[in-house]
Amino acid sequence: MDPYKSLREEAYEANMEIPRRSLALYTWGNVSAFDPKRALFAIKPSGVPYEKLRPADMVIVDLEGYTVDGSLNPSSDTKTHIVLYRTFMDIGGITHTHSTYAVAWAQAQLPVPVLGTTHADHCTHPIPCTDYIDREALKRDYEQETGNLIVETFSAQHLDPQEIPMVLVAGHGPFTWGSSAEKSVYHAAVLEEICKMAFITGLLNPRVEGLPAYIIQKHYDRKHGAHAYYGQRSDR
Amino acid sequence: MDPYKSLREEAYEANMEIPRRSLALYTWGNVSAFDPKRALFAIKPSGVPYEKLRPADMVIVDLEGYTVDGSLNPSSDTKTHIVLYRTFMDIGGITHTHSTYAVAWAQAQLPVPVLGTTHADHCTHPIPCTDYIDREALKRDYEQETGNLIVETFSAQHLDPQEIPMVLVAGHGPFTWGSSAEKSVYHAAVLEEICKMAFITGLLNPRVEGLPAYIIQKHYDRKHGAHAYYGQRSDR
Amino acid sequence: MDPYKSLREEAYEANMEIPRRSLALYTWGNVSAFDPKRALFAIKPSGVPYEKLRPADMVIVDLEGYTVDGSLNPSSDTKTHIVLYRTFMDIGGITHTHSTYAVAWAQAQLPVPVLGTTHADHCTHPIPCTDYIDREALKRDYEQETGNLIVETFSAQHLDPQEIPMVLVAGHGPFTWGSSAEKSVYHAAVLEEICKMAFITGLLNPRVEGLPAYIIQKHYDRKHGAHAYYGQRSDR
Amino acid sequence: MDPYKSLREEAYEANMEIPRRSLALYTWGNVSAFDPKRALFAIKPSGVPYEKLRPADMVIVDLEGYTVDGSLNPSSDTKTHIVLYRTFMDIGGITHTHSTYAVAWAQAQLPVPVLGTTHADHCTHPIPCTDYIDREALKRDYEQETGNLIVETFSAQHLDPQEIPMVLVAGHGPFTWGSSAEKSVYHAAVLEEICKMAFITGLLNPRVEGLPAYIIQKHYDRKHGAHAYYGQRSDR
Repeated sequence: MDPYKSLREEAYEANMEIPRRSLALYTWGNVSAFDPKRALFAIKPSGVPYEKLRPADMVIVDLEGYTVDGSLNPSSDTKTHIVLYRTFMDIGGITHTHSTYAVAWAQAQLPVPVLGTTHADHCTHPIPCTDYIDREALKRDYEQETGNLIVETFSAQHLDPQEIPMVLVAGHGPFTWGSSAEKSVYHAAVLEEICKMAFITGLLNPRVEGLPAYIIQKHYDRKHGAHAYYGQRSDR
Repeated sequence: MDPYKSLREEAYEANMEIPRRSLALYTWGNVSAFDPKRALFAIKPSGVPYEKLRPADMVIVDLEGYTVDGSLNPSSDTKTHIVLYRTFMDIGGITHTHSTYAVAWAQAQLPVPVLGTTHADHCTHPIPCTDYIDREALKRDYEQETGNLIVETFSAQHLDPQEIPMVLVAGHGPFTWGSSAEKSVYHAAVLEEICKMAFITGLLNPRVEGLPAYIIQKHYDRKHGAHAYYGQRSDR
Repeated sequence: MDPYKSLREEAYEANMEIPRRSLALYTWGNVSAFDPKRALFAIKPSGVPYEKLRPADMVIVDLEGYTVDGSLNPSSDTKTHIVLYRTFMDIGGITHTHSTYAVAWAQAQLPVPVLGTTHADHCTHPIPCTDYIDREALKRDYEQETGNLIVETFSAQHLDPQEIPMVLVAGHGPFTWGSSAEKSVYHAAVLEEICKMAFITGLLNPRVEGLPAYIIQKHYDRKHGAHAYYGQRSDR
Repeated sequence: MDPYKSLREEAYEANMEIPRRSLALYTWGNVSAFDPKRALFAIKPSGVPYEKLRPADMVIVDLEGYTVDGSLNPSSDTKTHIVLYRTFMDIGGITHTHSTYAVAWAQAQLPVPVLGTTHADHCTHPIPCTDYIDREALKRDYEQETGNLIVETFSAQHLDPQEIPMVLVAGHGPFTWGSSAEKSVYHAAVLEEICKMAFITGLLNPRVEGLPAYIIQKHYDRKHGAHAYYGQRSDR
């Protein structure tokens, strides 16, 4: 009996959302699911095509980066996941994709402004974009320093990863997270749609200034506030 | 025997058009079907994924906002639907989506000009875009005031909701309506296509002034005038 | 036994390519198949959804516009088809769609320049765009005058409809034709792709001047010239 | 027993990726699979629709351009393939498509800059774009000279076809290659995505300068360097 069966299945199901929702071509994405009690997570093996992926292929890794269970190499982005699990509290899943519009914003090195309620329903702030990773940091440990870069961006701008469950790494692409692996990949799909809408909006009206703060707050509270009334009570 | 069975089925079928025609991701849309004799309507429950939705889940709500039948919470946009049913005569269905191009125009705070016959076949005027909702109105009752904002936009610009079955709410997205729930979601798909075509047209030729009034009128009359000759006689 | 069976089937199959290749939403397109010996054609009935369409629904119309066989109203664009069959020699099929990028160019009132071999493989000239239809012409007979407008555009610019099997009607959309109904809808799909590619090219490089004439001619001759060598001998 | 069975199957499978991944409409693409021991290759027959294509239809051609086996005409681009197989060492497959965004860059006559890691994961340099083919060269032998044009572009710019497995032929479209037919069509899909992302990035931020060299090199080495650690050991 596999003691990581349900964790692997959670990670597997969330990984399969990447091709289903066209969030990456081929193997260019990965999702992990975290178990806070055991302080380890299940993550996609590196370079395995989604059509061949099985739940049992998920690799179990601890927060030191050791493979606890599984015969395949974990995702090459594993150390980035570790930094985020170690630093951002109460995260249950992390997703990395190369979705088209999110990558384009990351390549443009631009944060995504809050232009509408589709964005505000999920996040009250612009989606931050990091700087390019530093040459020295890259030499030390590229994937770990990518995680550090995300953490430093949130810290320097006084951002709360609970309120902003997504980031663009400049010249690379999006990382998103959430209370579960499923939520993290949901945020990856949300981010792609927000990025596409914001791109079109900017071409339609380059002078648009963005949604007033009182509408942003209202939409976020409708879904996430103490008096949230979106959805069914059982969802909250 | 459910006395609202056919109304629920009409609402259900129209709601399922939203994912089929890619008019919203996840649960970001809702359609209602109105019964004028009983002065109540069936509407999608809040936050329920389309793939789990069943006809029996549709919530029956009256024009005071009371749930007449059904165990789930109605859509969080229910009060917006109520204002439109109370104010706009002869409407049998209302649709709200977050379709990509319509949202982008709403975020750009721009009305959609009549650039071609695809638009004129359905509407003789530019698609209006409201202002951002007012801070005080938002505080009073956000969803009800969103309905009021739509009504005031039509009133201030002397627009006829029979001739213009669609609107963009600034910074939010489209609401559309029609003689039935099916027609309202048809108008949501039409609006998304019009918005996409107008976006591309504007990038191709920023100086385009739009279709002359005599062509607009001709196309509309072909489908909707007293001497309409589009379609089969039985459709009219 | 239906004496128009094979003509109806040809028209039906070509009409079904419109939804298959996403060349129009709902009923916004029509294809006809011409029988030169009997001087009549089969055309889609007006306003019938593709998913309900059957071969037997195709309406048989003669070149005076009389319905020879069939119980439904023919497409509202039937008179445009008639003008083209009467004027352009050796045409076996005509297609009208509202495909997104072709409509956008028509709305922008711009001919599509020959920017690459994808275009030159099918047509050696820019795709012409008519003027808006004249107010007086529209009053006389809108659909017939739309046909006349196309014919006059070709005549005034000394264009050969054999070499340029497609046109954009300003503010409306594309009409395409070919030696058969199948070829005409093929040209509708080609036109949509050419229009999309030309749109992107123009945004990438607004100063692009287009393919040199000697490459245009070479590509066209490879497929259509006296010494064509594209495809299998049996296709030519 | 067909002595070319496995070569034909490799070519067939790679050709079928073209419609599966929407890299060309109709018959506008071709893939070949090379057998270096026998110095011949299997290539798609000219003008045959993908839905009718069978493995046995693949034409076996030698490096002089003679059909060694097969009853159909080989792709009209066969001579371009030959030049590349004769000149670029260690290539096992070649793909030509008319994918939308890659064609648009080729029509814009612009190389594709390295704006992000999606590009750098596959290639450390901008994707080169040739000049238009010369009038005299075109007269001599269009397809062979298209091959020569690609070779000369790499030679003049001191580019290594092992490191840059893709090129844009100005006014025409992309050719890609790889260690196998499968890898070559993989590179065709990668190129299309890179071109789409770079197009959007350029509209978002026209002043973007591109990824620093140290990040480009890191990403390439992660997948392809002596110490590559992406994927499973068995893949390398």
